[in-house]
Amino acid sequence: MAETNRQITLAARPVGYPKESDFKLIETPVPVPAEGEILIRALYLSVDPYMRGRMNDVKSYVPPIQIGEVMGGGVVGEVLESDNPHFQEGDIVEGLLGWQEYAVSNGQGLRKIDPEIAPISTALGVLGMPGLTAYFGLLDICDPKAGETVVVSGAAGAVGSLVGQIAKIKGCRVVGIAGTDEKVAYLVNELGFDATFNYKTTDNYYQKLQEQCPGGIDVYFDNVGGEITDAVFMLINTKARISICGQISQYNLEKPEIGPRLLWTLIVKQARVEGFLVFQFADRYAEGILQMARWLKEGRLKYAEDIAEGIENAPQAFIGMLKGQNTGKQLVRIS
Amino acid sequence: MAETNRQITLAARPVGYPKESDFKLIETPVPVPAEGEILIRALYLSVDPYMRGRMNDVKSYVPPIQIGEVMGGGVVGEVLESDNPHFQEGDIVEGLLGWQEYAVSNGQGLRKIDPEIAPISTALGVLGMPGLTAYFGLLDICDPKAGETVVVSGAAGAVGSLVGQIAKIKGCRVVGIAGTDEKVAYLVNELGFDATFNYKTTDNYYQKLQEQCPGGIDVYFDNVGGEITDAVFMLINTKARISICGQISQYNLEKPEIGPRLLWTLIVKQARVEGFLVFQFADRYAEGILQMARWLKEGRLKYAEDIAEGIENAPQAFIGMLKGQNTGKQLVRIS
Repeated sequence: MAETNRQITLAARPVGYPKESDFKLIETPVPVPAEGEILIRALYLSVDPYMRGRMNDVKSYVPPIQIGEVMGGGVVGEVLESDNPHFQEGDIVEGLLGWQEYAVSNGQGLRKIDPEIAPISTALGVLGMPGLTAYFGLLDICDPKAGETVVVSGAAGAVGSLVGQIAKIKGCRVVGIAGTDEKVAYLVNELGFDATFNYKTTDNYYQKLQEQCPGGIDVYFDNVGGEITDAVFMLINTKARISICGQISQYNLEKPEIGPRLLWTLIVKQARVEGFLVFQFADRYAEGILQMARWLKEGRLKYAEDIAEGIENAPQAFIGMLKGQNTGKQLVRIS
Repeated sequence: MAETNRQITLAARPVGYPKESDFKLIETPVPVPAEGEILIRALYLSVDPYMRGRMNDVKSYVPPIQIGEVMGGGVVGEVLESDNPHFQEGDIVEGLLGWQEYAVSNGQGLRKIDPEIAPISTALGVLGMPGLTAYFGLLDICDPKAGETVVVSGAAGAVGSLVGQIAKIKGCRVVGIAGTDEKVAYLVNELGFDATFNYKTTDNYYQKLQEQCPGGIDVYFDNVGGEITDAVFMLINTKARISICGQISQYNLEKPEIGPRLLWTLIVKQARVEGFLVFQFADRYAEGILQMARWLKEGRLKYAEDIAEGIENAPQAFIGMLKGQNTGKQLVRIS
């Protein structure tokens, strides 16, 4: 075991896209577990869009990260020492342990991972928070029916790629929007999406969506917001359901964007828009994980991982993810 | 009986607010009922915000009114002749008979009104479409709970004034937004609203709502849209419900308005926005009318009517309603 714990802290509040200088790599002693605690060595860190909001000094559903504080986030790690009867040395666990190589925990909020079911990194992806987000955000909020058209923005990301596949399992026509030609090809060729387009090389989203959704849009799962979402609102069918999971196009703006006022479309289409946080489904996580694991085992769900190496590269991996450079789940492997 | 039927037709598609010249008063022979039909003499016409949308050449949930066509709308009238076994001379009926003094009908979609229950004009207001809109749009879409804070825009209008009173019956704190000092005083003094403000003399809606909703906003019933709605979105509580009934601030714009993108607020508050048309509750109209009539009889609901005289004044009454000159239900009495 190393003698120092390398950690990434918040050095400055970003303006627009975060820069590497907004983070600082520090070294501290490896923490010593107190009575009842366990010591965990990180194996994978998760970087996720929601973390961008936590870097601002704005009260939200969780308090902001303070300057000098270790960046928060999900981690899969191995138990090195345990003074807690629920965990033993060698256990693989997942929890919100932050961007650091070692962490101590009293066990609260930690989940034991069975490495037999799937690679342990999936506990941060398809069998973790992004998987649960896709599962509940699509099925509970939108209740897609066979034959309906489902549009997903951020379709090649950790959540979007699962949303589209779950919608396919449910018998829907699935249209995905992503930001590179490689991603849109991957969605069609590997994941079975019915149609896709690259929003960075498409001028008229409305026209493109109209072509790809000849029967209109029944369900929209939104990770992105902005002009893509505007176009969708103009094409929804009667009784459409829209799940607002993320608005990543808006997170790194230096000043808030304005856009057309489109609430009238909800009236004429008797449509519903609902925002959600995966935590609101916490009492049903077991159901979600079980079902996602079953689909995975049956080969009905595929997942991709984009893996950066070493904690020192976590800031870059995070910034790249915010810019859409990843396909599937962006992780950082701690060697 | 007169020999001519005076009718108001659509003369031109309005640009911005309708003008009187967008309408034309024509005279045609009083129609003769065919076999199985009834002849009805209009007593009251309804003018409603939704009619503005029907004047545009845009496909919506109903086809647009054509140039030269009689303006559509709800009417309360008296049966003058009947060749239909379900109606007899002297019956008072309500239906979508349009802006004209006489109409024939085969009886489909006509509702018989009992003049013993309430003045017959209420069949176009508290015991008609606006009453049902308030009832289902508030109770079904927002499910307000005792102690919650409910905000209503267009609060002194036909629908808004009922929404606020129903919310009071349900034990909520009710804040109403309207456009004159007389209206806001009426809402507090006559209808029992807890707080109100005049948006035309208020600079900062956010600050005013923050003052008047110290516990945040749980439910919002929106008739208006625009900047008022922007301010509400910034003050919603976790699990807030927003019912989009109308967006009257947007109906008469010469070019669409833009505003801040606020869908992110729905995520952090796990909140829901739903548009609706009262027709979607058609199979439960009887329930709504029965309950509204009971509250009316118990003195728990009050209503106001603003009555213009003569079909020739229907366009002016309609334009005035769009500009917020009415308090309560705007009607036109046909003498």
